[in-house]
Amino acid sequence: MQTLHVDLGDRSYPIYIGSGLLNQPDLLSRHIKGRSAAVVSNETVAPLYLARLDAALAGLKHHAVVLPDGEQYKSLETLNRIFTELLEQRFDRNTTLIALGGGVVGDITGFAAASYQRGINFIQVPTTLLAQVDSSVGGKTGVNHRLGKNMIGAFYQPQCVIIDTDTLDTLDDRQLSAGIAEIIKYGLIGDLELFEWLEANIERLRAREPEALTYAIHRSCQDKAAVVAADEREGGKRALLNLGHTFGHAIETGMGYGEWLHGEAVGCGMVMAARMSARLGWIDADAVARTTDLVARGGLPTEPPEAMSAERFLELMAVDKKVIDGTLRLVLLKAIGEAVVTADFDPAALHDTVSSRDAA
Amino acid sequence: MQTLHVDLGDRSYPIYIGSGLLNQPDLLSRHIKGRSAAVVSNETVAPLYLARLDAALAGLKHHAVVLPDGEQYKSLETLNRIFTELLEQRFDRNTTLIALGGGVVGDITGFAAASYQRGINFIQVPTTLLAQVDSSVGGKTGVNHRLGKNMIGAFYQPQCVIIDTDTLDTLDDRQLSAGIAEIIKYGLIGDLELFEWLEANIERLRAREPEALTYAIHRSCQDKAAVVAADEREGGKRALLNLGHTFGHAIETGMGYGEWLHGEAVGCGMVMAARMSARLGWIDADAVARTTDLVARGGLPTEPPEAMSAERFLELMAVDKKVIDGTLRLVLLKAIGEAVVTADFDPAALHDTVSSRDAA
Repeated sequence: MQTLHVDLGDRSYPIYIGSGLLNQPDLLSRHIKGRSAAVVSNETVAPLYLARLDAALAGLKHHAVVLPDGEQYKSLETLNRIFTELLEQRFDRNTTLIALGGGVVGDITGFAAASYQRGINFIQVPTTLLAQVDSSVGGKTGVNHRLGKNMIGAFYQPQCVIIDTDTLDTLDDRQLSAGIAEIIKYGLIGDLELFEWLEANIERLRAREPEALTYAIHRSCQDKAAVVAADEREGGKRALLNLGHTFGHAIETGMGYGEWLHGEAVGCGMVMAARMSARLGWIDADAVARTTDLVARGGLPTEPPEAMSAERFLELMAVDKKVIDGTLRLVLLKAIGEAVVTADFDPAALHDTVSSRDAA
Repeated sequence: MQTLHVDLGDRSYPIYIGSGLLNQPDLLSRHIKGRSAAVVSNETVAPLYLARLDAALAGLKHHAVVLPDGEQYKSLETLNRIFTELLEQRFDRNTTLIALGGGVVGDITGFAAASYQRGINFIQVPTTLLAQVDSSVGGKTGVNHRLGKNMIGAFYQPQCVIIDTDTLDTLDDRQLSAGIAEIIKYGLIGDLELFEWLEANIERLRAREPEALTYAIHRSCQDKAAVVAADEREGGKRALLNLGHTFGHAIETGMGYGEWLHGEAVGCGMVMAARMSARLGWIDADAVARTTDLVARGGLPTEPPEAMSAERFLELMAVDKKVIDGTLRLVLLKAIGEAVVTADFDPAALHDTVSSRDAA
């Protein structure tokens, strides 16, 4: 087992990474402070892994909230269902919530913990590659609104993150690729060495080689923890983690939540960001080609859906959380391994990027 | 104008108290950081005071969300309506929300600010006595759930609180009395001098004498600010502010939100807490009589509704936020001016208190 630390003063917490961690009940138990815990999971994950938590929950008052599976359920309505079950079962303020699942489960459970009785403890047990390398770390929690993704939520840190890499054995290929998108992201924004490792080894990830997966997860969490420690509430540098996300969120919202997986939309969004960076003359065609090639080899789309017009892209991007006083900021590339957040771009380059359906 | 400070490190903020403050646009403007602001108010308050904010909002992108009036609208559904209007109008993360109204508007607007795009600034402009002396100060925000009051929310501090005492001119007598309940509370829990002042002057408050109102508001905010500064997230001492609230919340939830005003339920709840304290032998009959008398002179009920059975009380009190690991804690009196939070009481005394319909 490897342990990383997210360094946030009195909100610091460990990330445990390894094989078979769900069979070590003490890892979970030591982070549960009160005498009750509720697991939030979904219909896909619960049958596979919920029973693994039994030993850790024995002796506690406990309950499982099992949600339907999919991004379309990351909503205020589902959030209220969690509150209703917790209140019906009389879970008090000393309860710990445990998010067992992918990014949707983690985000909604974290926000439920942030707002149930004005805040209770929670623990992340991510079971998808995307949640393990990205969404379970850093305290971004929330739900979607029909007018925009992740528009309602809180910055709220877990007590710990437990990453059992064995849970990836049951993940389907499409979900695995969605997680690979976020790993590519860390390479593109600030970790050239990781990007080059991916260029040499991405097929090993898709083949689920344990050693390759563990390396990529550890490295991604390390990269993310460093950014979050420097800028917890996204006043600056943390926005770099949104490379590909402004384009990607527009695709997710525009197509209807659940049509494109988040990681698929981010994969395509990173290619769009690279193309736009090239239009601005910031990177060359070779860098775009390397990005596009790696995203494609990751099993991810590199072209936005036909159904998304340029107008729809621009309309949806206008409500992005990185808009400040009416001005859209984007994460773009100055090089592979170097991203910037900027509002200083020619709007025509953006318009061309969201209009185009082939490589620049 | 008087200025108090709530001392919370980098979350500190001023409370301005005085007559005619809504006619001083600079007070509001100086606390708005970005170029946009949205006012949240209700159908009763907006026609009276919304236009007073025009001068402060001129030059900003701005919009008003006008909610229906009443505790029954303090819900996730109403919260979502605020989010929808903000997103439709493309208000970004640099927007300031302004809560113009009573406790319901303040609580829901504060929680909207805490969770819109994971947190934006907000300002409290309370227009009821209850909101001015209690709910606008201290950062407790949230909405109700049908199974319990204030069960969903956040601790989230405003940028400032602007208390224009002139707004009390339009408040109906029942709402005025509801605010007086919280002033009595500060006296009972830790401010004997205020309690004795109320015994001598409560009729002056009900007659809306400006000098008496200003004294009571200032003193209450001072008392509350001291408690909040010592214990922002209610780890200990802050729970004392809930004197009468566990009984009161049960009445509000049990009767249906909006039937009893919050302050009315708290008034009755304080009498019940005093009676229970006497049953435990902690205070004498004279202290109960002084409490009951002052609550009655405040224009508040001193008897719980007939419709609330003992069983219903106990069932609803079991989900109170002060329940820890299954044990109910109550705020009770050791003397007038001295309250304690305790789980150390004979359950029979509680049962007798919620069963009884006359003074102990």
